[in-house]
Amino acid sequence: MRREEFNIEDEKSIDNILNECEYGTLSLISDNKPYCVALNFVKYKDSIYFHGAKEGKKIETIKQNSLASFLVVKPYSIIPSYFSDTLAACPATQFFASVFIEGKIDFVEDLNKKSDVLNALMEKLQSDGGYEKIAYDKPMYTKMIEKTAILELKPTNVSCKIKVGQNLPQSKKDNIMKKLHERGTVQDNQTIEQMNTH
Amino acid sequence: MRREEFNIEDEKSIDNILNECEYGTLSLISDNKPYCVALNFVKYKDSIYFHGAKEGKKIETIKQNSLASFLVVKPYSIIPSYFSDTLAACPATQFFASVFIEGKIDFVEDLNKKSDVLNALMEKLQSDGGYEKIAYDKPMYTKMIEKTAILELKPTNVSCKIKVGQNLPQSKKDNIMKKLHERGTVQDNQTIEQMNTH
Repeated sequence: MRREEFNIEDEKSIDNILNECEYGTLSLISDNKPYCVALNFVKYKDSIYFHGAKEGKKIETIKQNSLASFLVVKPYSIIPSYFSDTLAACPATQFFASVFIEGKIDFVEDLNKKSDVLNALMEKLQSDGGYEKIAYDKPMYTKMIEKTAILELKPTNVSCKIKVGQNLPQSKKDNIMKKLHERGTVQDNQTIEQMNTH
Repeated sequence: MRREEFNIEDEKSIDNILNECEYGTLSLISDNKPYCVALNFVKYKDSIYFHGAKEGKKIETIKQNSLASFLVVKPYSIIPSYFSDTLAACPATQFFASVFIEGKIDFVEDLNKKSDVLNALMEKLQSDGGYEKIAYDKPMYTKMIEKTAILELKPTNVSCKIKVGQNLPQSKKDNIMKKLHERGTVQDNQTIEQMNTH
């Protein structure tokens, strides 16, 4: 049951999740069966981009059927049932944020666009730099750019769900936040921040 | 390109990943389009089990087409290109372990089996206890068990990939491990452990 109170539509929250998460799961249809693979990705100019070898099951599958969905998950804390001061197991859950994107995949062939995407991917995943910017006319990169497949997922539908206890009464939320604070892992602190935002 | 050196076949490594990871991505086919959703799960007696509401897109999709694939990912460190002592961006990568499972999904209807699965899920995700064990004849649980859908994915195919630099010469691996140790995050230490194992 998709609870309406968990659905998020503001673009900034969606972009935050896409920027923060390093990988997602790409789902395809291979010989009429669901197939999926985890991939690093970058959102760049309204598309989602992946890179990889020019051969393999993923590439063959996309050539047969370019329809795709892509799911990015930011996991938040496991909430034990006893955080709700009960012996019942029922309140046990995990909080999370996720972005679900549907669309078609195209292969990027333009060599300069391929460079732009690879630079965007580097800026996301290696934001502290320490590398020579990628360009097709730099001999150190020419062959690599030719050999690398760049996949573009153009979103036709994007949805976002953030589940951090918005459905709970304030007193229960306060109690959970207190107990997350006491447990105090890095993930618990990120969870408290999200609970205060949504 | 699926590199053979990354493929893992021993059941213990696979079970470790499935026990360690709290959620995975279930891929389905909905109206001839790839659909996917993140779910907490437990491996119990050779099947993968999920729980949830008895209504919603996931349930409707499975009723139309029970074929599924399920991907569980344990992310390891992002390896910056400069860990390889070069200005080229090319060596930048992320290490990871993943388990990919294909099969069909059945709805579990037996009320005692539903209880067993929910207990297995609780033991995995709340291993420190603090709850009353679930049983259909306990009035606190009767309605909840009736209302909860339990999905069973019976694996017909399981594959596992662990990519932690096995393809690199020992001197490069040693260099990366040294730099991971210097950076020293929790994830970096987990990555070093995996690099020493595989």
